[in-house]
Amino acid sequence: MGFLKELDQNDLASTGRELHAFAAELFPICRSITGDGIRRTLALIRDRIPLETVEVSTGTPVFDWTVPKEWNIRDAYIQGPDGKRVVDFQCCNLHVLNYSAPIHATMPLSELKPHLFTLPDKPEWIPYRTSYYRESWGFCLSHNRMLALQDGDYEVSIDSTLEDGRLTYGECYLPGRSTDEVLISCHACHPSLANDNLSGLAVATFLARLLSGRDLHYSYRFLFIPGTIGAITWLARNRESVGRVRHGLVLTCIGDAGGFHYKKSRRGDAEIDRAVAHVLRHQSEPSEVLEFSPYGYDERQYCSPGFNLPVGCLMRSVWGAFPEYHTSADNLDFIRPLPLAGSLHVCAAILDVLENNHRYCNQNPYCEPQLGRRNLYASTGGESIGDEISARLWVLNLSDGEHSLLDIAERSGLPFPAICDAAGLLSKNGLLSVVPDIAAPKGQ
Amino acid sequence: MGFLKELDQNDLASTGRELHAFAAELFPICRSITGDGIRRTLALIRDRIPLETVEVSTGTPVFDWTVPKEWNIRDAYIQGPDGKRVVDFQCCNLHVLNYSAPIHATMPLSELKPHLFTLPDKPEWIPYRTSYYRESWGFCLSHNRMLALQDGDYEVSIDSTLEDGRLTYGECYLPGRSTDEVLISCHACHPSLANDNLSGLAVATFLARLLSGRDLHYSYRFLFIPGTIGAITWLARNRESVGRVRHGLVLTCIGDAGGFHYKKSRRGDAEIDRAVAHVLRHQSEPSEVLEFSPYGYDERQYCSPGFNLPVGCLMRSVWGAFPEYHTSADNLDFIRPLPLAGSLHVCAAILDVLENNHRYCNQNPYCEPQLGRRNLYASTGGESIGDEISARLWVLNLSDGEHSLLDIAERSGLPFPAICDAAGLLSKNGLLSVVPDIAAPKGQ
Amino acid sequence: MGFLKELDQNDLASTGRELHAFAAELFPICRSITGDGIRRTLALIRDRIPLETVEVSTGTPVFDWTVPKEWNIRDAYIQGPDGKRVVDFQCCNLHVLNYSAPIHATMPLSELKPHLFTLPDKPEWIPYRTSYYRESWGFCLSHNRMLALQDGDYEVSIDSTLEDGRLTYGECYLPGRSTDEVLISCHACHPSLANDNLSGLAVATFLARLLSGRDLHYSYRFLFIPGTIGAITWLARNRESVGRVRHGLVLTCIGDAGGFHYKKSRRGDAEIDRAVAHVLRHQSEPSEVLEFSPYGYDERQYCSPGFNLPVGCLMRSVWGAFPEYHTSADNLDFIRPLPLAGSLHVCAAILDVLENNHRYCNQNPYCEPQLGRRNLYASTGGESIGDEISARLWVLNLSDGEHSLLDIAERSGLPFPAICDAAGLLSKNGLLSVVPDIAAPKGQ
Repeated sequence: MGFLKELDQNDLASTGRELHAFAAELFPICRSITGDGIRRTLALIRDRIPLETVEVSTGTPVFDWTVPKEWNIRDAYIQGPDGKRVVDFQCCNLHVLNYSAPIHATMPLSELKPHLFTLPDKPEWIPYRTSYYRESWGFCLSHNRMLALQDGDYEVSIDSTLEDGRLTYGECYLPGRSTDEVLISCHACHPSLANDNLSGLAVATFLARLLSGRDLHYSYRFLFIPGTIGAITWLARNRESVGRVRHGLVLTCIGDAGGFHYKKSRRGDAEIDRAVAHVLRHQSEPSEVLEFSPYGYDERQYCSPGFNLPVGCLMRSVWGAFPEYHTSADNLDFIRPLPLAGSLHVCAAILDVLENNHRYCNQNPYCEPQLGRRNLYASTGGESIGDEISARLWVLNLSDGEHSLLDIAERSGLPFPAICDAAGLLSKNGLLSVVPDIAAPKGQ
Repeated sequence: MGFLKELDQNDLASTGRELHAFAAELFPICRSITGDGIRRTLALIRDRIPLETVEVSTGTPVFDWTVPKEWNIRDAYIQGPDGKRVVDFQCCNLHVLNYSAPIHATMPLSELKPHLFTLPDKPEWIPYRTSYYRESWGFCLSHNRMLALQDGDYEVSIDSTLEDGRLTYGECYLPGRSTDEVLISCHACHPSLANDNLSGLAVATFLARLLSGRDLHYSYRFLFIPGTIGAITWLARNRESVGRVRHGLVLTCIGDAGGFHYKKSRRGDAEIDRAVAHVLRHQSEPSEVLEFSPYGYDERQYCSPGFNLPVGCLMRSVWGAFPEYHTSADNLDFIRPLPLAGSLHVCAAILDVLENNHRYCNQNPYCEPQLGRRNLYASTGGESIGDEISARLWVLNLSDGEHSLLDIAERSGLPFPAICDAAGLLSKNGLLSVVPDIAAPKGQ
Repeated sequence: MGFLKELDQNDLASTGRELHAFAAELFPICRSITGDGIRRTLALIRDRIPLETVEVSTGTPVFDWTVPKEWNIRDAYIQGPDGKRVVDFQCCNLHVLNYSAPIHATMPLSELKPHLFTLPDKPEWIPYRTSYYRESWGFCLSHNRMLALQDGDYEVSIDSTLEDGRLTYGECYLPGRSTDEVLISCHACHPSLANDNLSGLAVATFLARLLSGRDLHYSYRFLFIPGTIGAITWLARNRESVGRVRHGLVLTCIGDAGGFHYKKSRRGDAEIDRAVAHVLRHQSEPSEVLEFSPYGYDERQYCSPGFNLPVGCLMRSVWGAFPEYHTSADNLDFIRPLPLAGSLHVCAAILDVLENNHRYCNQNPYCEPQLGRRNLYASTGGESIGDEISARLWVLNLSDGEHSLLDIAERSGLPFPAICDAAGLLSKNGLLSVVPDIAAPKGQ
């Protein structure tokens, strides 16, 4: 049970501060599904973990889609009749409708208004809006600022380019003893949004760093990709090898102070679904497991019927369900160091389950072995036993080659680490042997 | 989703009035399991829908039973010591023990009493009693009237015949593209009882009229039969072809103001069971799904172990559980136009599910197809989607050839019509193809 | 349904008094896992039922264990500085750490104390402790008496022997028509403990007496054995034939005033699990069904993964969960006549289910048979039926050769005896035939 133990050697608070600091470093960059924003983001991730950057040309067909033009932006503003900038991209990159085509024009307010997006219910916040696949331009601003606009002519400027170029994503592959893979995916295409975007990037980066250079059972693949089109592009380029993905997680909205939510994979009973549910049940924060639905983040693509990969989505507050979602209020105050560190901990605990979820065979399956003479049992009869001995009895009783350690943890109600430690001790004492087809996968 | 839409073009209130008027026309007839009462009833149904009348001779063996003698009655009364009729069949045909043998005699009250049936708990109501398979005679009357009888000699007259003849039932067959059948069965053997008998006859007749002349996937068979012996006779005569019944419903007690009750088929998980449960869950009246039991109406015969047909029973108030059941209080006031029309609506919605419950294959199963460029998606990113788009995503995600539209409706929590409409739209856009073995059954 | 009917011919109270009297006779004996205590216990059981006594030599390997030395004890005491006995085995055999090696020595209190066991939370009660597999000596006493011990030298004497000898257990085999077996197992190794030990011995003895000499479907094997090592020894000696065990029960803690608890077998859905749950649901005392766990009584061994026998454990209060457990307060006042008799009743009802749980084939599977002409139905139509007729309809409907009578009882919600009686009556009327592979097992 190595990842969690290694993490626990560090102070939770200091890990949280590091995670938050990394998010803060990424925050100002104006990301989109293509362009220099995501390139700069990947560069900062590459400072921390080994990362391969992949670039795919505009126009490349990817299943039913086509890689779009590359978008870059330098500046954007609306200047009022009095010559003052009433909306300024330099203050907040959410102000521009993401993927806006370039424009420089002067127009009366009435003509401008259809291009303005606001949130009447949250009049102080700037919304986040995009128009990737229909060429358009626009500005997002607080509803109050919009209401304050006087009639008159406005100078509108979006200094962007929307041209043939490349779509960029990052891939960190950590080989394990098995070529079977665990996929960790997060989107890196949102501009200055903290929980929805940066929390996932930070936790995934630190998780990769935690695994890096260690002896791993599975191989791990971390994807830092533009949402939807990035996942589709990656799947299109890896269609043949995607069957290696044995377990997967999409990480998003994982830095706020809310409890955990896990949305199950389309399969609903995949090992990852059971592992996450088990870990969440045995940690201290509130948590809820949600059924799969085909709307959400990139699990939509991984769980499309042709792939049907065992990929779920781990969140704290559920995207779309918290008021700050897709607004300027999803900022660096909305994500907190301790929740970020707690999320990293939960991820490590999940991977510990996956890495150690072997099946064993009891070497003395007829009756109980005599634990007492091996110093594995209480020595004075007549008193009740503790959880440690209980875990040993459960492991011995259910280790018939059919039950995995996670099966045993679930049936016993004991936490996976207790079951895993018991299996380790019993193996050391020659009472268990691991079932090879899971412990040492083909090719070894 | 045609039946429901067609119905909705009419006013619910006027449909209800028509249904009630038809029940009122049938009400005065003295029906029994054989005889002219059921013949006259079938004639009135035949005025509305194509109906074949089948006659089976007394003495014909039908499985463990024998078709009984034909019963007809012209008059019956009890005349008191003072020469006045204290019980008169002309006032209410429930007064005669149904299937009474003829009698004309004078006897003291003490000798008459064992032949009188009353309801001490409901002293104003006349009970409904029968004696089909043990030759007998008797009268049913209100408990209060019985208590008022003075000692003395009573003239008893039942002008009935119980002779070799025929058992009669009606069958309306509406051919569809498939020879697989949907069976709708209701009993037509009760005298002046409205909910228990006439409500089912009226709703079934109107349902057949709604389907008549339309393009149908399934063939439909409506049975208007005497309870128990009618179903047994029909099954005996159709033993070889009964395997064509893919779904079935017994309709009874479906006109009162209570909420819906559906009793599942013996199988418990048949498509009809799931379809009805789904429709009831998504309509506005209270409803409850009940487990199968071997007591009840003709589902007893259809679900006998040798047949085990997928036939459930749709009711409003459950027979036997409402006080008016099998009494003179189950009259034309007890059934109401709007509940009758609501029952017809629910039946139409159920048939819409059965007719359209196909399986589809997503033609772009790898990742989501790009709905936006087909105008099947919201155009500005960043906002949440509505139920229409959600239905499309669900249909695409689960259309792997394994899931039926009902499966998808149940898993998504969306109503079947929304799922069905989405499937239609996606098919029109070339994104889905129907799986043939359900959509176009053998022989086409 | 013979056992229960036979029992019911006797007065529950007098049966309870007999059971309690037998427990009282066994109470004073100082039992252990080997030695004359268990021999004397088996002799008293043999006075009531046919019992074979098996003796297995010290040193015999039994799976991972070895049959231990034989322990016998004549006397034991601690004599205080003032020459008075402060602890005396003759007053209560719990005072000696069970399996203590012999000792005769004088030592100061400080040296004695590590050998004293008390219950600080229950200061008036003497604990029960053992040291079977680590040679040791010690005394158990009330915490208050221990606190009252003055400093000074104590004379300590345990006049025991721990030498090569034999392990003893008793086996009562009652042959039935089938060689398939029902196993009833209880431990007989605890000294003066009433609920934990004697209640099981008494109920099992009376149950065997009830079955003895009767026409039985199954063969029955009653084991009266030392806990753990006895079950292991029996399993080691019967490894090849143990597959005959079709159902099994461990009886323990079955005489106190608490409601029933049944711990399911490792399989969790074995017929014994369903039979016990059904019987408990339909009797009047509170009851609870518990999931299997690998800690407890000898079901641990029977349910070890190499055997995985369908053996559950029937209790009233759960061992370890009531304060009197493994203390001097688990005495003859703690078990009561009526609960003992009630436990015997429940066991008889369980065996009645197992003996009669056949599958039948409805001989008229197409539609219902006409029960009326066989006098198996109410004669006047229109009224509702009672449980007796309901049971007949359920048996007819589900007797398709697949459903056992217990299946039918569970699905109908009716008690097994009602279903069983209905099946008997229908068989007598030629309407059912039993499915042979259960009713008449191989070799007949």
